[in-house]
Amino acid sequence: MIIDCHGHYTTAPAAHNDWREAQKAAFKAGGATPPYPAISDDEIRETLETNQLRLLRERGADMTIFSPRASAMAPHVGDESVAKAWARANNDLIKRCADLYPDVFAPVCMLPQNPKADMAGSIEELERCVGMGFIGCNLNPDPGGGHFTSPPLTDRFWYPFYEKMVELDVPAMIHVSGSCNPGLHATGAYYIAADTIAFMQLIEGDLFADFPTLRFIIPHGGGAVPYHWGRYRGLADMLKQPSLDTHLMNNVFFDTCVYHQPGVNLLAEVIETKNILFGSEMVGAVRGIDPTTGQYFDDTKRYVDALPISAEQRHAIYEGNARRVFPRLDAMLRARGL
Amino acid sequence: MIIDCHGHYTTAPAAHNDWREAQKAAFKAGGATPPYPAISDDEIRETLETNQLRLLRERGADMTIFSPRASAMAPHVGDESVAKAWARANNDLIKRCADLYPDVFAPVCMLPQNPKADMAGSIEELERCVGMGFIGCNLNPDPGGGHFTSPPLTDRFWYPFYEKMVELDVPAMIHVSGSCNPGLHATGAYYIAADTIAFMQLIEGDLFADFPTLRFIIPHGGGAVPYHWGRYRGLADMLKQPSLDTHLMNNVFFDTCVYHQPGVNLLAEVIETKNILFGSEMVGAVRGIDPTTGQYFDDTKRYVDALPISAEQRHAIYEGNARRVFPRLDAMLRARGL
Repeated sequence: MIIDCHGHYTTAPAAHNDWREAQKAAFKAGGATPPYPAISDDEIRETLETNQLRLLRERGADMTIFSPRASAMAPHVGDESVAKAWARANNDLIKRCADLYPDVFAPVCMLPQNPKADMAGSIEELERCVGMGFIGCNLNPDPGGGHFTSPPLTDRFWYPFYEKMVELDVPAMIHVSGSCNPGLHATGAYYIAADTIAFMQLIEGDLFADFPTLRFIIPHGGGAVPYHWGRYRGLADMLKQPSLDTHLMNNVFFDTCVYHQPGVNLLAEVIETKNILFGSEMVGAVRGIDPTTGQYFDDTKRYVDALPISAEQRHAIYEGNARRVFPRLDAMLRARGL
Repeated sequence: MIIDCHGHYTTAPAAHNDWREAQKAAFKAGGATPPYPAISDDEIRETLETNQLRLLRERGADMTIFSPRASAMAPHVGDESVAKAWARANNDLIKRCADLYPDVFAPVCMLPQNPKADMAGSIEELERCVGMGFIGCNLNPDPGGGHFTSPPLTDRFWYPFYEKMVELDVPAMIHVSGSCNPGLHATGAYYIAADTIAFMQLIEGDLFADFPTLRFIIPHGGGAVPYHWGRYRGLADMLKQPSLDTHLMNNVFFDTCVYHQPGVNLLAEVIETKNILFGSEMVGAVRGIDPTTGQYFDDTKRYVDALPISAEQRHAIYEGNARRVFPRLDAMLRARGL
């Protein structure tokens, strides 16, 4: 099986996005948000069939771990009640996608984070979603949207949420949302910076001593981390931290959302196979065709297929590691005899 | 010749650093800063002989393009007058290093930036330093110190400074300083994030149409950029910008401060030779020995020596590109018959 660990519903029906605009306008005006619109199964099917499903089939993958559009999470908009209603609407929509295509989409939830809120609402929403069959969550390390004002991921601020993740045995992808900083382009600057920053926060702390089974996926190939793997190994040493193998790499995983062959080659050369999960984030940040290859930039399966690795390693990247990092996915697949 | 384009005076005499503390204390107390201390040539020699010069000789390089300690620039401390006095003290000290070892150190200045100041003071200091024989400057894209609140590098805020750089024909290394954000470790998170962010700002804008001869070095191997070269090529395409070759790569250069062989291999594979300048930032962020090689992490000459490239390419990385990017260095070397 080929499981893409990183897909967002970037093509949600217009009515869903219109409702978000209405919700924001109502918050601004101090009025009531209109009821969530009726969206038919056919509308949802169409947005998926013409986009994610078409590309999944064309590229030869089998499943996508699927979550709400990252750039639209925008936890800094409005207050916590706005964030809660928006997270519920998105997660309910993801649930419908997964119900319509249970063999293809494994649902992952967004959280009702807000720069002024603690994690109580997120704990509640995570419980609700896991109760509906979700297998993981996206955790935003910077709900403020581009100025990095939140406490580091190793801060006790996050601990109640981590306790719930451990209890439910679900991992989190560390994923920021859109940028409200004019200096930070979302997918070109903010995402990659936030990935890198998250990893360094984990080096500085000792989070996995407190939560030995907590698991994070750092997306976009781990930001800058594999390219600067020597720097990070050296900094861990200078900070008198243990070797990264034992300090972080039983708990931290990188996806393959690196949009050219040399980058994926470096990832596979530097990072142990057990820490790499296939991902494409397709229909995402970069949708065009690479003129140097004639293929989609985000068709990362081609890059993984071209790696000089063994069949066992390829299986781990495509399926085995995802099933290990997402035990609820593994259980779901086993229940289907897979 | 082997020219290291990225060295900071990280080992400045204690009296210099003590004066900085006195300056900060005086600002806080509203009193007068004590006079700058007398530091003998022998003291300066000793800090260099036992550190940068020793390692330069051991590793077999010839010259270092040398600037004040980046993490200590701290432009957010105090007001503009504090920044000016601190920049002058640092640049004067760099000038003394270059005078003591004119064959080894080519001086580059820091700027008296401050989050509340325009670039007038920096223009003045750049002129003063170039008048003393400096060949370039370090430009801090985030003088606030870790929350990315400055205008993008393409903003007209910076234009008067760029005009002066063009007039004086000096390049800038884009280099942030220490972090005052508890979530951002300086050399592990802030530096690498800022490098990546800077490049994406340049993609979004059209700065080099306005300044065709302006030249920036993005240090630390260009942050995450080479690893995500496909993403950046794809984003330029999605943003309807020209190809990166013509849009940026006549004006933007990356150093080799990437502290392991696979990273430097990727850099050399993905980025054209003409855009790569040898750099180590030694006695800098990562001072230890890599247990996997038995060599210093920051001995980047070993990685460049091991690249499967031609003698012409190696010459460009070690010398030719630095002389092209720093014309005042080239003139200085020519005057010496080199």
